[in-house]
Amino acid sequence: MTDRIADGLPTVEAVAAAEAIGTEDTVLVSGFGGVGYPKATLPAFAARDEDAALTVVSGGGVGQEVDDVLIEADKLARRYPFQTQAASREAINSREVAFHDRHISRVGDEVRLGEFGDPDVAVIEAVSVGEDWLVPSTSIGHTPSFVAAADRLIVEVNEAQPEELERVHDVFQRDLPPNRDPIPVTGATERVADARVPFDPEKLVAVVETEQADDPYEFRDPTDADLAIADNLGDFLEAEIERNPVLAESVYLQFGVGSLGNALMGELSGIDFGDREVVYFGEVFQDGLLDALDEDLLAGASATSLALSEAGQERLFDGIDRYADDVVLRSADVSNNPALIERFGVVGVNSAVDVDLYGNANATHIGGTDVVSGIGGGGDFNRNCRLGVIALPSTAAGGDVSRIVPQVPHVDHTEHDHSVIVTEHGVADLRGLSPDERMTALIEVADPSFRDELRAYHDRATAAPGHVPFDPETAFDWRD
Amino acid sequence: MTDRIADGLPTVEAVAAAEAIGTEDTVLVSGFGGVGYPKATLPAFAARDEDAALTVVSGGGVGQEVDDVLIEADKLARRYPFQTQAASREAINSREVAFHDRHISRVGDEVRLGEFGDPDVAVIEAVSVGEDWLVPSTSIGHTPSFVAAADRLIVEVNEAQPEELERVHDVFQRDLPPNRDPIPVTGATERVADARVPFDPEKLVAVVETEQADDPYEFRDPTDADLAIADNLGDFLEAEIERNPVLAESVYLQFGVGSLGNALMGELSGIDFGDREVVYFGEVFQDGLLDALDEDLLAGASATSLALSEAGQERLFDGIDRYADDVVLRSADVSNNPALIERFGVVGVNSAVDVDLYGNANATHIGGTDVVSGIGGGGDFNRNCRLGVIALPSTAAGGDVSRIVPQVPHVDHTEHDHSVIVTEHGVADLRGLSPDERMTALIEVADPSFRDELRAYHDRATAAPGHVPFDPETAFDWRD
Repeated sequence: MTDRIADGLPTVEAVAAAEAIGTEDTVLVSGFGGVGYPKATLPAFAARDEDAALTVVSGGGVGQEVDDVLIEADKLARRYPFQTQAASREAINSREVAFHDRHISRVGDEVRLGEFGDPDVAVIEAVSVGEDWLVPSTSIGHTPSFVAAADRLIVEVNEAQPEELERVHDVFQRDLPPNRDPIPVTGATERVADARVPFDPEKLVAVVETEQADDPYEFRDPTDADLAIADNLGDFLEAEIERNPVLAESVYLQFGVGSLGNALMGELSGIDFGDREVVYFGEVFQDGLLDALDEDLLAGASATSLALSEAGQERLFDGIDRYADDVVLRSADVSNNPALIERFGVVGVNSAVDVDLYGNANATHIGGTDVVSGIGGGGDFNRNCRLGVIALPSTAAGGDVSRIVPQVPHVDHTEHDHSVIVTEHGVADLRGLSPDERMTALIEVADPSFRDELRAYHDRATAAPGHVPFDPETAFDWRD
Repeated sequence: MTDRIADGLPTVEAVAAAEAIGTEDTVLVSGFGGVGYPKATLPAFAARDEDAALTVVSGGGVGQEVDDVLIEADKLARRYPFQTQAASREAINSREVAFHDRHISRVGDEVRLGEFGDPDVAVIEAVSVGEDWLVPSTSIGHTPSFVAAADRLIVEVNEAQPEELERVHDVFQRDLPPNRDPIPVTGATERVADARVPFDPEKLVAVVETEQADDPYEFRDPTDADLAIADNLGDFLEAEIERNPVLAESVYLQFGVGSLGNALMGELSGIDFGDREVVYFGEVFQDGLLDALDEDLLAGASATSLALSEAGQERLFDGIDRYADDVVLRSADVSNNPALIERFGVVGVNSAVDVDLYGNANATHIGGTDVVSGIGGGGDFNRNCRLGVIALPSTAAGGDVSRIVPQVPHVDHTEHDHSVIVTEHGVADLRGLSPDERMTALIEVADPSFRDELRAYHDRATAAPGHVPFDPETAFDWRD
């Protein structure tokens, strides 16, 4: 037996562990950014020859060994708060699986308070486990809250994940309100706890050995639009840091998950930050940040997930001695904590499906109906950043569809929340602008081929009275 | 001369003070909840025989001696972030005055960072002033940030406001990010500072003596719908506090500004909180709370404004010895601070113009176009409360218009933010519900005369595929 599992623990095969899951249980799984999720227990549960209707809650995105296997076996009834697999997307959009996307920073509390059902079982991937503690693997997510909330605990110890991951973890667990103190973190890479998630030994019903790598993230290469967005963002930030006293000495950055976010991270070297200390305070650590750390552009990084490609994971694990001091993984209610984001004055860059002429952003539902992944941490950051930036290509579908639209059919981030919209055509700095002025500024960052039509909407809207120029008859005409 | 003004200060008539305001200045005025605003300087400025185009920023609602006089003189060009006067509403809705409503908790920083223009002059009502400090009057709002940000300072010392107000004030000023510590307040009525707002003596250009009461708030008597909403809310809270561990020992409450909020505060005695300590942590202290304090239903209250009726102000001022220990006025970035709201696990009850079947709330714009007052602190509380409640009558216009609609034309609070919708017809507890399930729950709290039409929309929407049932063709058909 591996020395990663303390003596005397109930080590069993996955099939036996899955017996601890009831057919209508609420199951809390580790995992965030597509990594650190359990690989063996839920496939074993899915293979059982009986009807089941589970509720599954994850911290963030997890692999197909959770969503796909349960959906294929018709055993998933409800899912919260974020998912990234084609199978779950399809099941949710056909309303076979009930879903609601939630602000990531709040999900730990929501689970502890039973807002997604009575928490029955937590299934957690770890790199090691003791009598009353475990060390999470490549993500922390909401593992501490899930372990605290669940009646029963199944731990999968994955030999394919390096044990040295414990050197990056900082697991701080908050008390419930109203006896909740401020999180004592005063800087991006400050450690305030240790790597272990404590648990009540009576909860531990099974330990399963696995040896399976995360389903690796695959980032597409940056497109021309990505690179033009990075250029525009860089020019804007260089001007902003000269005038904004919050950014006079240091810059806290966050980039959203995904290929655009990864491309923007990778282009950091193109931005002249002068002699300011630049740190990352976000939810996912992606490949683009490795270069920035290696080149000393970045002094450190805080996140809840190592959402790296296979090559990126190898690079991090091989260089763990170098990276461990500068990279901190935290639980998602710390990495995404509104109070910390606000106190650090984070510059956050997140993407959207589309943005409307009022400045509202739809980050989740194509056409207002079909969910992509969920709101994730976008609302945690957009709402609380000192400078909230939404970056998106101005078109989709090879240029046939404008992503700057009269009115988004679904609002995730309101006009009150963020400050700036960036496309490959420029920067709309919305600070201080009235609704009418916002419309003019946003039309200027739309693709040129759509600007006349957007201006025609603006004209129709301003022909009617009211603070917000609005033409309800045609506001949704652009919907796919 | 009054002994409220220290010797040697530049005490002048309002006409002379107004000379310190340039014709295109950004003017920051004290005031919140319709009280504590300057009464003399802006009327004097408005009376000057020259063109002007001011930008005016207040903490919250102020009286007609700010908005009306400037608008009547055609001297107001831009206005942030909240207003409550008929004159400003009309000027904004006719787009004569540019306006944007902002989250109240953020406005102090936004002003300090010049997001509404370079801050030229602060005009602040005080009960006393020294060489380098002033004591605010009936509201604090963003006075500390405004005084810190402005190049020049005009102080109006109002003899009609009792000097004893200093006994309720607690003025904590935060550093800018990223060197911003957690706010050290650990309970609703804890004091962490003193009553004085410090200022650089070189900024003080004029002190003006006034003696004019606040334009008193007038609350309408509770309607039958208000009382039925209070009943439903009370029943819901009594059940919730029994099951929710956050509310096991104490309950932090907040109610939104306005007659419904005031009515709900006044009905607190109808709720059985058991032996829990009940405190108020909100932005406005309204008449309804005085009874609750007198009857020991409430152990204390934190707010940024004494938004009381004339009778309420008299009662508070006459009983200041009794109330001073239990009532704390804070600056608006503390009273509305997201981190404190989250840490205390506040139960927040705010209203809306309309709520849609998805759970989104429009709190600001009638028909999506005509602003009422602005988002105010609604987003600070709804987004960060442990239990966010939207309470509203199910109809407007004497029952002719449903306030539960298929889709709100303007979104201030998204489906991700709050938990519960209450009308006089019941409680829709949205926690854990999918979009489809939310629609069903929300139809049940609509007025019975509109439920069939709402069900017909739900049916049309669910006939199309997608996670969110949506019929864009008819989503806005209900718009006034």
